[in-house]
Amino acid sequence: MASPDPLASVPQNIPSAASLTRVEEVMQDIRQRIQMRHLCVGKKLPSIRVQADSLGVSRSTVVEAYARLVAEGVIESRPGSGFYVGRQVSPFKVAETAAGLSPASDPVWVTRQALLAPATSLQPGCGWLPDSWMPEQEIRRALRAVSRKPLAPLTGYGTPQGSPALRQLLAHRLGERGMHVAPEQLMLTESSTQAVDLLCRFFLQPGDTVLVDDPCYFSFQAMLRAHRANVVSVPYTPHGPDVQAMAACLAQHRPRVYITNAALHNPTGASLSVEIAHQVLVLAAQHDLTIIEDDVFADFENHRAPRYAALDGLRRVVYVGSFSKTLSASVRVGHIATRPDWVEQLVDLKLAIAFESGHFSAELLHTLLGSGTYQRHMNSLRARLADAMGLTLQRLEKLGVHAWHQPSAGMFVWCALPEGLDAATLSEYALHHHQLLLAPGNSFSPSQQANGYLRFNVAQSLSPAVFNALAKSMQACRRGRAT
Amino acid sequence: MASPDPLASVPQNIPSAASLTRVEEVMQDIRQRIQMRHLCVGKKLPSIRVQADSLGVSRSTVVEAYARLVAEGVIESRPGSGFYVGRQVSPFKVAETAAGLSPASDPVWVTRQALLAPATSLQPGCGWLPDSWMPEQEIRRALRAVSRKPLAPLTGYGTPQGSPALRQLLAHRLGERGMHVAPEQLMLTESSTQAVDLLCRFFLQPGDTVLVDDPCYFSFQAMLRAHRANVVSVPYTPHGPDVQAMAACLAQHRPRVYITNAALHNPTGASLSVEIAHQVLVLAAQHDLTIIEDDVFADFENHRAPRYAALDGLRRVVYVGSFSKTLSASVRVGHIATRPDWVEQLVDLKLAIAFESGHFSAELLHTLLGSGTYQRHMNSLRARLADAMGLTLQRLEKLGVHAWHQPSAGMFVWCALPEGLDAATLSEYALHHHQLLLAPGNSFSPSQQANGYLRFNVAQSLSPAVFNALAKSMQACRRGRAT
Repeated sequence: MASPDPLASVPQNIPSAASLTRVEEVMQDIRQRIQMRHLCVGKKLPSIRVQADSLGVSRSTVVEAYARLVAEGVIESRPGSGFYVGRQVSPFKVAETAAGLSPASDPVWVTRQALLAPATSLQPGCGWLPDSWMPEQEIRRALRAVSRKPLAPLTGYGTPQGSPALRQLLAHRLGERGMHVAPEQLMLTESSTQAVDLLCRFFLQPGDTVLVDDPCYFSFQAMLRAHRANVVSVPYTPHGPDVQAMAACLAQHRPRVYITNAALHNPTGASLSVEIAHQVLVLAAQHDLTIIEDDVFADFENHRAPRYAALDGLRRVVYVGSFSKTLSASVRVGHIATRPDWVEQLVDLKLAIAFESGHFSAELLHTLLGSGTYQRHMNSLRARLADAMGLTLQRLEKLGVHAWHQPSAGMFVWCALPEGLDAATLSEYALHHHQLLLAPGNSFSPSQQANGYLRFNVAQSLSPAVFNALAKSMQACRRGRAT
Repeated sequence: MASPDPLASVPQNIPSAASLTRVEEVMQDIRQRIQMRHLCVGKKLPSIRVQADSLGVSRSTVVEAYARLVAEGVIESRPGSGFYVGRQVSPFKVAETAAGLSPASDPVWVTRQALLAPATSLQPGCGWLPDSWMPEQEIRRALRAVSRKPLAPLTGYGTPQGSPALRQLLAHRLGERGMHVAPEQLMLTESSTQAVDLLCRFFLQPGDTVLVDDPCYFSFQAMLRAHRANVVSVPYTPHGPDVQAMAACLAQHRPRVYITNAALHNPTGASLSVEIAHQVLVLAAQHDLTIIEDDVFADFENHRAPRYAALDGLRRVVYVGSFSKTLSASVRVGHIATRPDWVEQLVDLKLAIAFESGHFSAELLHTLLGSGTYQRHMNSLRARLADAMGLTLQRLEKLGVHAWHQPSAGMFVWCALPEGLDAATLSEYALHHHQLLLAPGNSFSPSQQANGYLRFNVAQSLSPAVFNALAKSMQACRRGRAT
């Protein structure tokens, strides 16, 4: 079905020609001509007769197509004069509807709801830990320490590549995980999100194809839409991507980049096996594929899963990390580790589009990581998460909600709803009637095949009220289906 | 002349066909096919005979074009086999040479040099105030205050649009300058640079044309290159852009967006007159042009120049500001003021590509702005800058360096070198021999017509050593020219 978005002709939204009706084909043709600026704002469209002749379709097809485009606001009808291209605000929209009305049409629905939710709401669908799990005293202490430091980090710009002291410390940490990088191979960014976005700008041109996991972190999809990339996906298994499906996908679509979470995959909580990691790297070499490995959940691991970046020696793998999930989401520092020759160009790009990442945040992070308290904080966090995981799985089981795979650590578990329940409908109902924020499966699924799934954040699922509200919502949706 | 950059086929670098030789045409054709991925890495190029026949040129033309592309690293010659597409790292490069070797080829040369310069270097070309001019004690005090605040701003994410309290305060400040905006019309960003970049992503598609001033802030050019935009420019006069030139440019090139500093223009220090502001807005309406007004120097003004945003009521003007020049460059918070219907979509885009701007930085900025000390700080800063401006102009005059226009306030003055001196050569010499960072005119000039100019930052020009080093460099360059 054609999307109601006048701007839906970005590649990933174009249904294959075979599945389009004649009317939709005409609509798509006009949308594309508008988007390519062959038809400008205010320009008159060809008359229905001329359009029908030129496209070789019937006049009634054009009449219907024009009427639907008018309804969508793409074109305007001026009675007695004809049809004109409407005023388009932007060639780019992330969401197809206004302000996240529905999880089915908005890749940032979960994020927006979570960020806007009142403190009293229940948020098992949220993507981060509760504030109270963060190391409050350590952060306050670090802030006071930074307030006594020399002036530069408080007022001035940092170096383009980012604090040498912090890069030194990060390089050492990466070395401990088998990634042997020099501090010169690291560049600091505002966040891991900005890091992935920067890499997309570096590697991609509009229309390039990008491979992601199915399911994957929804922000990858929103971001790739902003890059006008063509998104293809392969199923994620409990041990990494489906290698056979990936081989076929690479051969068919020749994606330029693969973006993934390698350890404690979001949303499934699964971890990559060394066998699959190796196979994927062989495929990547065969198809000249660059891999962006987003490792923001690394420090939650109890046992170390392999990393593409470690096996590959950072030749075709670019590694991204941050501490927003374990220390503070508001102290914005991410990092990229990559080949020396790419770092230099990435620094140029960063200067051009962001000028600098936060000197102050880098100083604060360096203070926090250098104090030795981070390790203690993470030890306690991991233990707390393991308890929460056990409890959450138990409570979900009672409701007939089963883990697709039991994660070895981390905050996320990917769960199958009982037969017949629709995650999008359930999520809308739960938010509206119980202030319960769920993360519906299709938010994460490029193929939209995950409407029987929800992602749970076990740290946000400790209150029994979560499961009361979930049970009531499931019941109501079952009844709704029955009537 | 064809650029030595294999990726130079981004629009702004394509010479018009008329000015190309046959060889360059063939080279450009191949570069474009590589960039469009019609020719992939490792792919064999057509033989010289086939290529000549298919393009309708002589074989010697193709031989020469292939040889030059080999020299550029775009293609590789494999003796006995033929020519192959070389390994391309990225479709995007800001600078044409590695790591800012020359101000002539690198739009971020000045920035990079300034960020990397040792503390002992002299930096009249730098784009910001010395650290010691920033309100050190106030920032330290604000940090301690924030360290005692509730936990959320220290560890958690903020709302997608950014701190409501800070937006309220900013809206009030904008109101005082004649821009009547509700807090809901504001969105916070990491910085003004990120704000302009976000707006470019919102309004532009690759290949769209963007209008800038000549000269203009060099980062606009680097950023627009990252957006693959086609850049056109009109001369800047002491009272704003040249309106007649703008009218002609709009008619000819139909740019979608105009990006400018409205008050205390960078690099000229000139201010917009109300007459020109009005004329530009009339032209913008006629040509459906959106204006991005970057107002980071606003608080340096002694007398308020008009703002496009105020005259226009934020209909087609989007306003951008930050405090990085007046408070702290390391506390990263910028803001966008725009139409309510655009804010919502910008928030979507921000969620997709940056997730969030710094909650902590916003809290710190709110503390600093709310304390009342900011006004006192700015009063003293303005007085100090006025003194520095007078002194700098005096010292420059002695060297035969004349202000193009005497700025009413701010830190920048745009100066003409004595006849015959080349700003790029002088800047390279001064940096190399005297650790003196100058800002050569052509860094700012899209038309590359400003090689007789330098931008001086008066706050960074207080040391007599600046003028000693400048005098020596000028002398050496004069001698160099003479020999």
